[in-house]
Amino acid sequence: MNGLIELGKKAKAASHLLAAATTAQKNKALEAIAAAFESDKGTEILEANQVDLSAAKENGLSQALTDRLRLTPERLADISKGVREVAALPDPIGEIIGGGSRPNGLKIEKIRTPLGVVAMIFEARPNVTADAAALCLKSSNACILRCGKEAIHSCMALEKVMREALEETGLHPDCIQLIHDTSRQSAVDLMNLTSYVDVLIPRGGKGLIRSVAEQANVPVIETGAGNCHIYVDESAQIEMAVNICDNAKTSRPSVCNAVETVLVHSAIAPQFLPALQKALNTHQVELRGCPKTAALLPGIQAATEEDYATEYDDYILALRVVDSMQEAIAHIQTYSTGHSEAIITENYSNAKAFTELVDSAAVYVNASTRFTDGGEFGFGAEIGISTQKLHARGPMGLTELCSSKYIVTGNGQIR
Amino acid sequence: MNGLIELGKKAKAASHLLAAATTAQKNKALEAIAAAFESDKGTEILEANQVDLSAAKENGLSQALTDRLRLTPERLADISKGVREVAALPDPIGEIIGGGSRPNGLKIEKIRTPLGVVAMIFEARPNVTADAAALCLKSSNACILRCGKEAIHSCMALEKVMREALEETGLHPDCIQLIHDTSRQSAVDLMNLTSYVDVLIPRGGKGLIRSVAEQANVPVIETGAGNCHIYVDESAQIEMAVNICDNAKTSRPSVCNAVETVLVHSAIAPQFLPALQKALNTHQVELRGCPKTAALLPGIQAATEEDYATEYDDYILALRVVDSMQEAIAHIQTYSTGHSEAIITENYSNAKAFTELVDSAAVYVNASTRFTDGGEFGFGAEIGISTQKLHARGPMGLTELCSSKYIVTGNGQIR
Repeated sequence: MNGLIELGKKAKAASHLLAAATTAQKNKALEAIAAAFESDKGTEILEANQVDLSAAKENGLSQALTDRLRLTPERLADISKGVREVAALPDPIGEIIGGGSRPNGLKIEKIRTPLGVVAMIFEARPNVTADAAALCLKSSNACILRCGKEAIHSCMALEKVMREALEETGLHPDCIQLIHDTSRQSAVDLMNLTSYVDVLIPRGGKGLIRSVAEQANVPVIETGAGNCHIYVDESAQIEMAVNICDNAKTSRPSVCNAVETVLVHSAIAPQFLPALQKALNTHQVELRGCPKTAALLPGIQAATEEDYATEYDDYILALRVVDSMQEAIAHIQTYSTGHSEAIITENYSNAKAFTELVDSAAVYVNASTRFTDGGEFGFGAEIGISTQKLHARGPMGLTELCSSKYIVTGNGQIR
Repeated sequence: MNGLIELGKKAKAASHLLAAATTAQKNKALEAIAAAFESDKGTEILEANQVDLSAAKENGLSQALTDRLRLTPERLADISKGVREVAALPDPIGEIIGGGSRPNGLKIEKIRTPLGVVAMIFEARPNVTADAAALCLKSSNACILRCGKEAIHSCMALEKVMREALEETGLHPDCIQLIHDTSRQSAVDLMNLTSYVDVLIPRGGKGLIRSVAEQANVPVIETGAGNCHIYVDESAQIEMAVNICDNAKTSRPSVCNAVETVLVHSAIAPQFLPALQKALNTHQVELRGCPKTAALLPGIQAATEEDYATEYDDYILALRVVDSMQEAIAHIQTYSTGHSEAIITENYSNAKAFTELVDSAAVYVNASTRFTDGGEFGFGAEIGISTQKLHARGPMGLTELCSSKYIVTGNGQIR
């Protein structure tokens, strides 16, 4: 813990300096970081990545994880591009978001401020290091990053280049700190660094997020749990419903906004389900259904309670026939993680009731759940998708990395 | 835990119903609650309060706590008045707080929603039961309340009357639930009821709030820690500075927005400190100071590190002479709980720099820290004063008991 306390103190001190930095200073530093990645320093990063890749090979890391770990000149160029895109976004800090004058003459302004020190825990993707650091820098937050041991050499190289760029452009290098100790203990220590960490955002798989939620004493924003549903109402246009369900399942099954269960009204199920099966067969999607579904789609596997509770993140889809929208909403209330749900309907009252009654971060009428995304929502950059209700809900942009404070000016008022 | 899980399930189910209630329904229920307190049912509440008061006497509860516990017809009338004031506030739910159209034709609305289930832990003040329940009801949150054992009969009587009023006006009684088990374990269980509690707000002394922050796994909003500072700049008007410091210390020393340490620039200290001492002598305020203060105010007690870190909540004030505003800000960064700080100055640049550099929920220029209050800020009602940066910072009104969701409507959009 001692090492981390030192690091926490440095981050807190840097955060005070960074809070006073101008937009121009921050953008200059971001530009310097992007330029450094494209310079000879980029070569050093790629060399460090080779060390991680060799270790990955020795340790038999899976193909998928190794691919996430790999940096190439093209990927590094994409990282630079991402940093420049963050530089181009409006600065959230200092925006006046409320206020007015009080009867006693006090003037109250509510202004957007940094959170202070943002910690992120992630796994084997080195690009998250640059991505997270850039978002924190733009929102004037000092960051403490902890990557998985698989990516430590790559991330250390990225950290070194970014800290040099901060120093060159007059910002304190401690605005960006990576924890070099990749032991399990360092993660647990970070989760409990309550005196220095204002928020911890885990970015990664469900295991990581659950472990952080259970063990952290610092405030946490939970992201990314997505057991999403589409309800195909009696009045839905069949072709639209099939297109949306197909898109929501197969356009990118591994992401959190992909649909996992389609609920269909019994009156439309005989027409809809065979059409959906046909569309999904193109992508070899495995279907699992309730007995009523099985009666309409003979030969499919039975869906269990476990299926309805599972975020497959894969080419598997659970199906259930319901006799009313109320039954669909009750199913969603039982199994949803509160990420994204959609209704496909031509019935105005049902559309209105569904959006009012379903308690999820994003509720859709006649559109794919796949749109729950910072880019698609027009936020420019995304830190993650919050599935909690406190502080931020749904896609989080730069403003969700901010807090606020009240500035109250008077001329001697007492109470 | 089993009893609490049952209670959590009921609260969650009630919260879904309450989310769909109209403003008119909620106001009708609040009016029925206020009227019931003024009816014969009020007598039952006062009788139950007598049981608590007798137990308090037997158990030797302190005079101060017994006074907080006591209900009188006048206090019950005040509680009714408070409930009606909450009814009169604008409904925060359903307000459109953002949104627009996307290039693909999707229309996105960000609307204010309830948090869901709000839990509050408080101590011996029965009025908090009605106060918290009214604020939660108005913001469409089901609430789970846990009071200290000293107030359990009073709170159970209040709960009974409120639940009856809900039922009579067509809202589900489980919108308001009190935990009848006042064992230590029931509090710990509530802090860990993660499947059902969306946020836990402790209302009470520092011990309670610390214990909740340390033990809770559910999201918590920390409130009320107030080690507040006033910095008297070289250029301050002496009379204004004395008035403000006197007001901030003595108008109500037991509350969180009272000042605990006054920092004074060395150039003005010889004029300011004796004048302040004179004013504070009227209220027998005990002064504790650094060596430089003691040189100007002979005979005062020395202030220790411990003093500067302490929220006295009493007629005691710590003093420190500093040689610059930077030194004052460094002191504040070290000891402040981030609640409220003020600068008294006529220097424009110092006023600007102080408000920018001091990282507290409310930062004042030439006004008393005592204004950090929901009523004074114009919020109408106050749940507490958040000293954390996530979700809410500073005085919390009804909107801080809310979350949001995105409603996205389309006509078949896929990604």
